[in-house]
Amino acid sequence: MLKIVVDAMGGDNAPAAIVQGAVLALKERKDFAIVLTGDENLVRAELKKCDYDASRIEVVHCTEVITNDDVPTSAVRTKRGSSLVVGLKILREDEEAGAFVSAGSTGAVLAGGIMYLGRIKGVMRPALCPAIPNVRGGKTLLCDAGANAECKPPYLVQFAIMATAYGRAAFGMKYPRVGLLSNGTEEHKGDPVHQEAFSLLNETAGVNFAGNVEGRDIMYGDLDVVVADGLTGNVALKSMEGCGKTVSSVLRTEFTSSFGGKLRYLFARKSIKKLQTMLDYNRYGGAVFLGLKKTVIKAHGSSKPKTVTAALVQAVDAVRGNLVQTITDMLEEAGFGNETV
Amino acid sequence: MLKIVVDAMGGDNAPAAIVQGAVLALKERKDFAIVLTGDENLVRAELKKCDYDASRIEVVHCTEVITNDDVPTSAVRTKRGSSLVVGLKILREDEEAGAFVSAGSTGAVLAGGIMYLGRIKGVMRPALCPAIPNVRGGKTLLCDAGANAECKPPYLVQFAIMATAYGRAAFGMKYPRVGLLSNGTEEHKGDPVHQEAFSLLNETAGVNFAGNVEGRDIMYGDLDVVVADGLTGNVALKSMEGCGKTVSSVLRTEFTSSFGGKLRYLFARKSIKKLQTMLDYNRYGGAVFLGLKKTVIKAHGSSKPKTVTAALVQAVDAVRGNLVQTITDMLEEAGFGNETV
Repeated sequence: MLKIVVDAMGGDNAPAAIVQGAVLALKERKDFAIVLTGDENLVRAELKKCDYDASRIEVVHCTEVITNDDVPTSAVRTKRGSSLVVGLKILREDEEAGAFVSAGSTGAVLAGGIMYLGRIKGVMRPALCPAIPNVRGGKTLLCDAGANAECKPPYLVQFAIMATAYGRAAFGMKYPRVGLLSNGTEEHKGDPVHQEAFSLLNETAGVNFAGNVEGRDIMYGDLDVVVADGLTGNVALKSMEGCGKTVSSVLRTEFTSSFGGKLRYLFARKSIKKLQTMLDYNRYGGAVFLGLKKTVIKAHGSSKPKTVTAALVQAVDAVRGNLVQTITDMLEEAGFGNETV
Repeated sequence: MLKIVVDAMGGDNAPAAIVQGAVLALKERKDFAIVLTGDENLVRAELKKCDYDASRIEVVHCTEVITNDDVPTSAVRTKRGSSLVVGLKILREDEEAGAFVSAGSTGAVLAGGIMYLGRIKGVMRPALCPAIPNVRGGKTLLCDAGANAECKPPYLVQFAIMATAYGRAAFGMKYPRVGLLSNGTEEHKGDPVHQEAFSLLNETAGVNFAGNVEGRDIMYGDLDVVVADGLTGNVALKSMEGCGKTVSSVLRTEFTSSFGGKLRYLFARKSIKKLQTMLDYNRYGGAVFLGLKKTVIKAHGSSKPKTVTAALVQAVDAVRGNLVQTITDMLEEAGFGNETV
């Protein structure tokens, strides 16, 4: 049976939220099992509080944890007994294991993923790709959202290809429309790196390139994929997140600060809840780290149980949709398959 | 009396919205006069519909308009009879004129500003600086929001100095807290340009540097100034704008698509309006183009009358607060005053 490996110790609410989310995911999808890596006593204590199918959850004991205070690259080398490194090694070695999910340190997940799984042949730089909810009720894939602050033009082309493959494999997008994130829609916009990426994208087989796009286009839903260097992509993601949190905070203050506000909330709650649900990043699982030999998903550091459940369902969908093979094939088709990198 | 020059033909709703906004601004502030540049017949026709003090509005006839379809750099050279170029020349030559406001083509406002007004001594690159509303009810100044897609580290240092000066001159910020927009808060984040800018900012006299910040920090209100290269800054601004518009659109659909929704809106409208007001960019005037010898403000292309009014009030405040002199002094203090650029 397909196994998804989960870092039970990663994130602000671990292990409780991770274990609860894992148990919920098993109820949502019947066709997979979970391997939890972490402190066995703590994990089992959380499991005891839940009602779950023991035949579908395995716990692998780990003695260490990588935290946000660790330096990522050295931590993944030295903390070999950590829930993150042990999880990645299980993913690498167990043929049934299809993906790894962690809400731990982003830097460590990226460094560990590259070190223990390796890149797909021809991939220059793996990239983080979250799926952002858009106005039309669909998702826009943003790639790269923070793995590579400094990019060369061909990296951006590969991000477009990998995100296109992800859209096909996991979201049923047939011919994803791809935009290049810049400071305006005109062809000449951006710095020289983006200008050259624009030219290259125009000529890349398999990429349905729609030209330069602006930050606001990410949520408008006219595009399936938005390509960005990791610095710009991360700033876009966090700016939208900040705006969403600001809106939620203003609404909360408005509707709870006075008796009149509370009364108004009683009448408006159905509509308000719909808005808050849309802005709630916990519902959207995690960002897939595209370009590795097996699928790795980075869930938000402050993941709640439902976030973990969403990330696990996302992992199952990506594996069942043959994400890694789709990326491999598309890169080869675009002439990157034999690239020396 | 202080004069503010206004491009009556710039923006999607010109000249009607511009003229109406100008008339409203005269009522809001008594201590200045307005010079409108544009097609005199059209402008006078709009003025006729308003109740205004004729002694405080002058109309200067122009035969041309620069549109978004024009190539900015050549348009400001060749369309010398345009409302934009004529306005900038009046600003340059009339000693009483303190600022110029336009909702026209951003590229043309930037190119024209540099060409006809020139840079303050020592300024390497003038930069666009909008004031973004934050959760705490204050403003966060974002600089550069799109004038310079490609930046060298010292440009970012100057953006920090100019925005600090703007915060002091126009917003009463005494010692503005400055963050550098990056893909994480750790010191090593960002590409080499941002990493070097980080080091330089740490050593710059007069800048209260708080380190690297993320996109979400722009709206959280812990910072007074967020420094960015123009590509990243523009993407952040547009991403927040997109999220805000998405929220407004979801609320509108929710509250108008059904009888139940309309009923709920009746009860919740006070709170909803407060949120929409906060997200309404029209209330915040325009982005100041910092670093020129006189003040230029770029208002949103889709400016409504209240946007124009806000931009005019903003212009008056900037001039009265000695914005240009404050920038000049601060650059000199930081050792940029004699820079050969």
